Amino acid sequence: MGSTCEMNAAMSVWRTLPLFVLASSLCLCLSRAEDSAMENIVTEKKAEESHRQDSADLLIFILLLTLTILTIWLFKHRRFRFLHETGLAMIYGLLVGVVLRYAIHVPSNMNNVTLSCNVNASPATLLMNVSGKFYEYTLKREIGANDVNDIQDNEMLRKVTFDPEVFFNILLPPIIFHAGYSLKRRHFFRNLGSILVYAFVGTVVSCFIIGLLMYGCVTLMKQIGQLGGDFFFTDCLFFGAIVSATDPVTVLAIFNELHVDSDLYALLFGESVLNDAVAVVLSSSIVAYQPEGNNSHTFEAMAMLKSFGIFLGVFSGSFALGMATGVVTALVTKFTKLRDLPLLETALFFLMSWSTFLLAEACGFTGVVAVLFCGMTQAHYTFNNLSPESQDRTKQLFELLNFLAENFIFSYMGLTLFTFQNHVFNPIFIVGAFLAVFLGRAANIYPLSFLLNLGRKNKITPNIQHMMMFAGLRGAMTFALSIRDTATYARQMMFSTTLLVVFFTVWICGGGTTQMLSCQNIRVGVDADQENFIGPDGVERRSTKHESAWPFRIWYNFDHNYLKPILTHSGPPLTATLPACCGPLARCLTSQQAYENEEQLKDDDSDLILNDGDITLTYGDITVSTDATGAHTSGTAVGGVAVNSDEALDRELAFGDHELVIRGTRLVLPMDDSEPPLPLDSHRHRHKYETMS
Amino acid sequence: MGSTCEMNAAMSVWRTLPLFVLASSLCLCLSRAEDSAMENIVTEKKAEESHRQDSADLLIFILLLTLTILTIWLFKHRRFRFLHETGLAMIYGLLVGVVLRYAIHVPSNMNNVTLSCNVNASPATLLMNVSGKFYEYTLKREIGANDVNDIQDNEMLRKVTFDPEVFFNILLPPIIFHAGYSLKRRHFFRNLGSILVYAFVGTVVSCFIIGLLMYGCVTLMKQIGQLGGDFFFTDCLFFGAIVSATDPVTVLAIFNELHVDSDLYALLFGESVLNDAVAVVLSSSIVAYQPEGNNSHTFEAMAMLKSFGIFLGVFSGSFALGMATGVVTALVTKFTKLRDLPLLETALFFLMSWSTFLLAEACGFTGVVAVLFCGMTQAHYTFNNLSPESQDRTKQLFELLNFLAENFIFSYMGLTLFTFQNHVFNPIFIVGAFLAVFLGRAANIYPLSFLLNLGRKNKITPNIQHMMMFAGLRGAMTFALSIRDTATYARQMMFSTTLLVVFFTVWICGGGTTQMLSCQNIRVGVDADQENFIGPDGVERRSTKHESAWPFRIWYNFDHNYLKPILTHSGPPLTATLPACCGPLARCLTSQQAYENEEQLKDDDSDLILNDGDITLTYGDITVSTDATGAHTSGTAVGGVAVNSDEALDRELAFGDHELVIRGTRLVLPMDDSEPPLPLDSHRHRHKYETMS
Repeated sequence: MGSTCEMNAAMSVWRTLPLFVLASSLCLCLSRAEDSAMENIVTEKKAEESHRQDSADLLIFILLLTLTILTIWLFKHRRFRFLHETGLAMIYGLLVGVVLRYAIHVPSNMNNVTLSCNVNASPATLLMNVSGKFYEYTLKREIGANDVNDIQDNEMLRKVTFDPEVFFNILLPPIIFHAGYSLKRRHFFRNLGSILVYAFVGTVVSCFIIGLLMYGCVTLMKQIGQLGGDFFFTDCLFFGAIVSATDPVTVLAIFNELHVDSDLYALLFGESVLNDAVAVVLSSSIVAYQPEGNNSHTFEAMAMLKSFGIFLGVFSGSFALGMATGVVTALVTKFTKLRDLPLLETALFFLMSWSTFLLAEACGFTGVVAVLFCGMTQAHYTFNNLSPESQDRTKQLFELLNFLAENFIFSYMGLTLFTFQNHVFNPIFIVGAFLAVFLGRAANIYPLSFLLNLGRKNKITPNIQHMMMFAGLRGAMTFALSIRDTATYARQMMFSTTLLVVFFTVWICGGGTTQMLSCQNIRVGVDADQENFIGPDGVERRSTKHESAWPFRIWYNFDHNYLKPILTHSGPPLTATLPACCGPLARCLTSQQAYENEEQLKDDDSDLILNDGDITLTYGDITVSTDATGAHTSGTAVGGVAVNSDEALDRELAFGDHELVIRGTRLVLPMDDSEPPLPLDSHRHRHKYETMS
Repeated sequence: MGSTCEMNAAMSVWRTLPLFVLASSLCLCLSRAEDSAMENIVTEKKAEESHRQDSADLLIFILLLTLTILTIWLFKHRRFRFLHETGLAMIYGLLVGVVLRYAIHVPSNMNNVTLSCNVNASPATLLMNVSGKFYEYTLKREIGANDVNDIQDNEMLRKVTFDPEVFFNILLPPIIFHAGYSLKRRHFFRNLGSILVYAFVGTVVSCFIIGLLMYGCVTLMKQIGQLGGDFFFTDCLFFGAIVSATDPVTVLAIFNELHVDSDLYALLFGESVLNDAVAVVLSSSIVAYQPEGNNSHTFEAMAMLKSFGIFLGVFSGSFALGMATGVVTALVTKFTKLRDLPLLETALFFLMSWSTFLLAEACGFTGVVAVLFCGMTQAHYTFNNLSPESQDRTKQLFELLNFLAENFIFSYMGLTLFTFQNHVFNPIFIVGAFLAVFLGRAANIYPLSFLLNLGRKNKITPNIQHMMMFAGLRGAMTFALSIRDTATYARQMMFSTTLLVVFFTVWICGGGTTQMLSCQNIRVGVDADQENFIGPDGVERRSTKHESAWPFRIWYNFDHNYLKPILTHSGPPLTATLPACCGPLARCLTSQQAYENEEQLKDDDSDLILNDGDITLTYGDITVSTDATGAHTSGTAVGGVAVNSDEALDRELAFGDHELVIRGTRLVLPMDDSEPPLPLDSHRHRHKYETMS
């Protein structure tokens, strides 16, 4: 999605807006008219110069990322786990920030021209008549009266400053989409109930806890005269909302490398993905809280309800939009033979996914949220219709975009700590914030876990709860939300504090994951799937049948019997599932493959409802409705190697690793990382051989 | 590269420039001070509204591309060859343009505020004091006094107008890089001499021929009073330069589908790739022609020489930069074990390639040209160091970017015919231009072919010359160059005419390719490689030994014996090629694989110099130093299937198709399109089966 937003960025900038002011032709030009030819040349030179400057500035970031990549490689090569690449990117960002701030000094060449104007509006486009020549200006932003003087000083720093919307329009979408696209995993569905509770209830709880605590902190500051500006309760709630979005990418990467218990993994990842969405919508609906009357910061039931309505409306709207485009893509890929041309298929997939974002933004919903659910739908349905090449291509494409965007954001975080102009570091507020974040996380995890355990057969043990508590890192989403608006004093203080929270959690919590795992003695080196049928976990496994609540079972049956067959080539033929009356319809909707594969094709969430044939059934999934392994099997078939169940298990494990990689792909060891498996195996061997020789 | 430029676009826009004006605090605000809170809300609403509008506008383009993709699929499905997808994209663009122009009418809500100002400069950033609130404005462009009135009317049309620089910073780089990256082909090197002559001499010749003819045409127009503005000789030359860049993507796609004689293919493609680069630099150095004195349009030897110097300097500088970053990437990928982590490898490859562009732009060279040569270097050296996954990933990534960018440009071309504001369609000029383009192409192909035939053993037959003449389509580069600057009357007339030239050539010449092929009875269905050793072509093949001139043979030997071993894992160990004195150096530079593969690894340009063992040697290449087939062999090895020479030949052919795909991937039949071969085969069978059943 990131790459796709470039036009958006470009466009949103290079188009002009309806409103504009026409410069009066009766402009009193006291200045001497300059030679027009010379003037033009000067303007060209200016533009050229600025373009070169842009390129140079951007080059800084590219080199930063390149440096990060090389260092990551070194770390992985040395099996060094204490610093994740995102933490590394931040450190490099910090260093560059320091250099830009203190080392480089650009003489700011500016000529102050006195402009006496008489306007009663702030038009989006301004036409100026300068000594007979017309110049078009576009409104960039409003500037606080106090910043006016800053602007002259720090041109160099402002050069490397992006418009915050870049994060929402360009960098976040690929990250979020990739998260949703990688989310299709048995363990996720097995814990869906708990994940939803943590994501929705938990986020709201932590938002309000943090909000209340910060309000107390702020009032205290006001008492002792530490507060330099307004700080309303809505601001506190807003702060609570933005720091409630967890992003444990570091932890997940390590989990994934150490093969930590996959239920814990699923819980953490599922929560982090969904609570991003919740936090975005929550914060926007808190901002939308606008009571009538002069004092716009009193409590008012109506406004409160309105905000709540906005929350529901925006969230469900984005959800529906995301699902819709996903479904459309699935239908298109199913009923065209587009799979014959992987390039077209991939391009279509890419464009449709991007259009989700644009559509949601155009309708006033939240593009990021829509993209998340679009990704999940694509993974659940469309993915099964894609040709194996396209499956690989799409996965690899979004993996790459995710990697680049994520590391860019984190390095920018580091940079901005020094280059941002209006930091407000307030010790009391910072301490209060850290405390509030801690307590908010605690109030999210422990009570909810207790409640969930009442319903769960395989309990969420205290150790796991502590681990989840510890893994409440804050990351890209929190940063993007906090940098989005730094106009007021309150927002500036929030931004500075948020930066510190992110740094602390990513470096300390992220770095301490392995220690935490060992001191909580949480099982590592668990085979994601052996637990399905071996040893004590066999119990745990069977228990999931009862665990999965009836709404989910109903949904699963509906999905497996109707949606999957309608939207994909997999699942049972509709002729078998639909009542006889709909025979013709069923026939025209059911694809050829569905009949052919009627036996072998199964849905790989099928273990939501388990039976004794579950294990073989699981292999049924793997050999067909998954990319890597799908390619693998066909490949092997051509290779003429029989597929015996040992291989299938082996493959399933590798596949488990691969699929679980999610946002943590980077810390996976070589043999887990590469896809599709067939080349993978061969290279694994070759690499082993190389390292041996 | 495209996706990579998003930040560039974003950044180049959201940073401010040093120069700026400070609004006087003694601003006479006669307008009533508005309520600040309300004001803020209004501003937010405005920004939000505009953002939603952006998304909606952009959505138009996405849906356009989606529609194009689906239609292309239909065409390919029906083996319909008369309309290429780029032509299709243009048609859809035209339709949307008509709708936007005539159907939709947006009531432009503008309030004209009288602004009496007193400025003696056009600052890049303008600070306005509007009733006590400061607003920052950025300089967008200078507007001709006559356009001032237009602006009010056509907001809707200007909404869908991009800044021309978008094409150079975002859309062209991926196209050009992909061209360079796909250029690694035996037949290209075999015809390198001729290609260079066509690209350099040919482009310059056609540029000046067209320039002179247009100057005649323009003077004629001036005589009969048809000329509405200045039109200097430099403008004519500029026009000659921009329309001299050929882009036969349509023709190449059809060639590739019909397996046309691969020498013809190599000549056409090589020429089109290189003359893009020549045209860019040529046009920029023509623009740089600035004689001293008042009359800036007289001939002046010094300025002429200066322009020539600029041409050489910029071209060689971009060339060197592109090579340099390519070499750096090759070294990094060789001496790190990055290949264990394909994601990191791909990301690094991507970032390094992008940094070429930025570096070139920052140094004042031409990014697009640098990117071209970077792509060629990456393909020639780095590619051999990449892991098979990364080889696929990078190829597929840039293939996708190229596809999207190309179709976007062509659909935008169609759109802009109706949405562009300042078209100047002059019948005489248009007729003259078509004539000049035709004659310019003729003056390029026929004389040069005659001269080249004096030196070539396998002559360029008249039929092939006619075909090349016919295949002189104009495309993306011509459009991008002509839209870059439409300020003056001359440039506007050029732009309008260029659009028509592109439409005509793409639709008529592109559509008539198959007929032209048959009426010129040029061999189709040629196996790219059989001709190397079967029948009369055996002669032709052997003849290439003598054909390849000594400078190329020297270069080849140097490359094969020193550069390849130093920069890649392939080629003979340096210990074998370097003199004994450099033993230690050679040992530390030679990689393990080089020893291991000493026998099997060969360079796949090796048939520049041929010997009797050439054919087997060719197989040596295929099985190792090429992506698809490389993966294939290893895969097959795992699959446990022996690699006999028949398979190798078969594979080589498929590979030939694949590699030759170049910019024409889209029209290739399924079996030629997908990669890597092993999955390909399996799917091909499956698809066949599906279509049968």
